[in-house]
Amino acid sequence: MATQTELFLRSHPQGAGADIDALKTCVERLAACAQACTACADACLGEADVKDMAACVRLDIDCADVCSTTERVLTRRTARNPELERSLLETCVLFCRACAKECEAHAGSHEHCRLCADTCRMCEDACRQLLATMS
Amino acid sequence: MATQTELFLRSHPQGAGADIDALKTCVERLAACAQACTACADACLGEADVKDMAACVRLDIDCADVCSTTERVLTRRTARNPELERSLLETCVLFCRACAKECEAHAGSHEHCRLCADTCRMCEDACRQLLATMS
Amino acid sequence: MATQTELFLRSHPQGAGADIDALKTCVERLAACAQACTACADACLGEADVKDMAACVRLDIDCADVCSTTERVLTRRTARNPELERSLLETCVLFCRACAKECEAHAGSHEHCRLCADTCRMCEDACRQLLATMS
Amino acid sequence: MATQTELFLRSHPQGAGADIDALKTCVERLAACAQACTACADACLGEADVKDMAACVRLDIDCADVCSTTERVLTRRTARNPELERSLLETCVLFCRACAKECEAHAGSHEHCRLCADTCRMCEDACRQLLATMS
Repeated sequence: MATQTELFLRSHPQGAGADIDALKTCVERLAACAQACTACADACLGEADVKDMAACVRLDIDCADVCSTTERVLTRRTARNPELERSLLETCVLFCRACAKECEAHAGSHEHCRLCADTCRMCEDACRQLLATMS
Repeated sequence: MATQTELFLRSHPQGAGADIDALKTCVERLAACAQACTACADACLGEADVKDMAACVRLDIDCADVCSTTERVLTRRTARNPELERSLLETCVLFCRACAKECEAHAGSHEHCRLCADTCRMCEDACRQLLATMS
Repeated sequence: MATQTELFLRSHPQGAGADIDALKTCVERLAACAQACTACADACLGEADVKDMAACVRLDIDCADVCSTTERVLTRRTARNPELERSLLETCVLFCRACAKECEAHAGSHEHCRLCADTCRMCEDACRQLLATMS
Repeated sequence: MATQTELFLRSHPQGAGADIDALKTCVERLAACAQACTACADACLGEADVKDMAACVRLDIDCADVCSTTERVLTRRTARNPELERSLLETCVLFCRACAKECEAHAGSHEHCRLCADTCRMCEDACRQLLATMS
């Protein structure tokens, strides 16, 4: 069954103008990653060892902002500009990779970091795969 | 199977501190509504009759911003403040209701407006149900 | 000399549709408050006593998100809806007041909290004054 | 007299960790650009010739989101990552430049597009100058 993201992409008057499967997956994982990073930042803030988690909180919040903006830009299909999309996706890959690496360092002690690292890696992959369809 | 939203709520060091089913549903529908409104605003902008859709584009963008902020605030569970959560949820109900009503007026001519109206109504309901568990 | 905010309000094809001085001041203070809360949250996160600042970080981040959304909604003047504006302003007053109060408790030990408390109070006042012109 | 942005950068427990004049100017222009693009998008939406302004509305909204995220990331100074900052600044330069170019094409007929184009160019310059201090 088509997801909400796919239904909207298919209902756009100009069409998706891109590989619809790669685009849909990317938009959905960006939304999941923005939420995971927001949740992980706040959970880290509530931990007894928050002093050791400061870098993780900071990267989580940044990654949430970047994924949320990338999700919005890719959701828009009117008068699209592939050069801008590519640059934003490449930046997003760097934030997701850095955040995944930082969260992986705490995955053994905090379940939210383990979950967040996985979500960041899935998002990083989806951004790379969408980029691959655009070259 | 537990959704990502639920897994994060359960992994928070202070716990969810709220009715976890109502909270989970609300956060998930806020995310869906933010994305739907972003997509509908852009699709309206690409329509031949965009001049008649200006009010819809504007409300969609506002509703996306308000749902996105409400999603973030509710996702955070450290040092939570129920008075602030209630006020934000009540404001969000008004934006979702107004946006649903505007989109319903165009549901016959634009499929993205029909989809968006449904998503706004689902989000409005979830906000009301979470509010009901907090009184 | 007119500020950028005022120049844009005056160049809108439908006009500002509100008390332009109160609206301009409110939009400018919302932008200042969003930035102050973002800076204060991050500075708190870098403090040696971050464990005692967790509630402050959390409120700062929430207040930044709410002020940023309120700034965007009030900046938009096409097909405006005063009922929605009022509800969002009332919610924003509560977030600014709560954040000011929390920051004031740390104003003696952290200069960024003292600065942030002042900015939140100025924003709270501007929201109240804009609300007063709308009743 | 020091601006609010500078006072916060100077009150950060780890210091600004960068050329403070270039950083301050960049953060302030990013905030101005995010607001200008939000205002211009909405003013375009209210114009009688909105059908010819669809690409401008879309780029304005994207540029507002990208500038707002870049402003937030640069405002944060805890555990900063210059590689991520550089990539985001380079992406932001592309969005500001594209948005300025689009707004310049309408500057003769719409004052808000003329104002927005200027603000985008000032922001593009400030991002480039901050990048120059980081190499």
